[in-house]
Amino acid sequence: MITTYDGRNFSGFQKQKNAKSIQGELENALTIILKDKISCVGSGRTDAEVSAYMQPVHFETDKKFDEQKLLKSMNGILPKEIRVLSVAPTEIHARFSAKKKTYLYKMYMSNIELPLCNDALQISPNLDVKSMKKFLSYLVSEHDFAGFQSSGSPTDTTTRTIYSAKLVKHGMHLDLFITGNGFLYKMVRNIVGTMLMIGEGKISLNEIKSSLFTTFKATKTAKPEFLYLYNVIYPKEK
Amino acid sequence: MITTYDGRNFSGFQKQKNAKSIQGELENALTIILKDKISCVGSGRTDAEVSAYMQPVHFETDKKFDEQKLLKSMNGILPKEIRVLSVAPTEIHARFSAKKKTYLYKMYMSNIELPLCNDALQISPNLDVKSMKKFLSYLVSEHDFAGFQSSGSPTDTTTRTIYSAKLVKHGMHLDLFITGNGFLYKMVRNIVGTMLMIGEGKISLNEIKSSLFTTFKATKTAKPEFLYLYNVIYPKEK
Repeated sequence: MITTYDGRNFSGFQKQKNAKSIQGELENALTIILKDKISCVGSGRTDAEVSAYMQPVHFETDKKFDEQKLLKSMNGILPKEIRVLSVAPTEIHARFSAKKKTYLYKMYMSNIELPLCNDALQISPNLDVKSMKKFLSYLVSEHDFAGFQSSGSPTDTTTRTIYSAKLVKHGMHLDLFITGNGFLYKMVRNIVGTMLMIGEGKISLNEIKSSLFTTFKATKTAKPEFLYLYNVIYPKEK
Repeated sequence: MITTYDGRNFSGFQKQKNAKSIQGELENALTIILKDKISCVGSGRTDAEVSAYMQPVHFETDKKFDEQKLLKSMNGILPKEIRVLSVAPTEIHARFSAKKKTYLYKMYMSNIELPLCNDALQISPNLDVKSMKKFLSYLVSEHDFAGFQSSGSPTDTTTRTIYSAKLVKHGMHLDLFITGNGFLYKMVRNIVGTMLMIGEGKISLNEIKSSLFTTFKATKTAKPEFLYLYNVIYPKEK
């Protein structure tokens, strides 16, 4: 299934006791419709308040069903903040088969908080965007991103490959699109936090360049509600 | 003053008894700060639920004040859906001096309602966008737009000049930008409603072309909450 959600009022993708989660809502709807206890797996676990334009999710069942009917029933049961966009049979594992993921972090540059831009982080119009772009260029390629990992989620390796990290400006809006083979816990938000400190002149480009993949440790984590899982790429099925 | 607002929870720009209006909130804040009974005039009266990226507003007072302090005080008093972006002295009349106005109507093409697109109207991905663009091209120039006026707002003349009417597609999004020297009551929403009927094949291009500025009467008014006052142009002050 391809799903999309406004995650701002949810505790994250992962199912939790006593909290509204995306996975919990999906499994609840699937279990009702298929009359089978269904567990589902997303491409990754988006944090509390993080949204997704496109979050692939798979589940396994022996039950037979019509895909279009399942889609309609799901969208009838799910809260309006979550929608299923498509359903199709696949051998792909939503998490382990994912080759590339793109996240979007939305910002806008204004001294005044804008009521029509509340899906984006308000940042100063005086930031040094050139230095921010330079910092992003340092991240591209395979690196040890341990300095951008928040504690609380042990992993085998902290090495990841970033394929691209681009700032797109349109009017007052500033969108960061970052694509990698995977991201550590809160890595995108720690990259955004660091990028903004560079834009504000609180960290110099030279300082960051020399320490980046050795002693550097991110100290600012950008807010979750402006982060969006944007795209996930899988290998073509035979 | 240049103001911006998310008008979805307001009864429109114009002050009304027993209803939250943009003008009412602005006048209330001005009256508190300047300790003077202030009336203000917008470039036009946006309908209930219509928003504005940029709505110029003027007021007259004998009171002396610091413009930056007024701006900050206004934004401290106003509800978070309304913000003042700038304040400057002017001889310009917000309404009568306006030369051109641009409205934006936001849509997205999807069979499924998308939780992250709730600032735009959901429309079918199967609409005939080419015919919709053709219809918009008929509107450009000076015409009698009586057929696109909703009753309830008598005016001297129903002749208006449309300078441009463009559909901009980005991904699933479809934005209509329409610029004119002025718009009749609900004219933009009646144009959008008619455009969508053409896109759905409910009105043919030939039919509309022959009747457009003679016998045609719009029968579909698009919803207000996806309409945005986008820009207002004044002559340069000497």
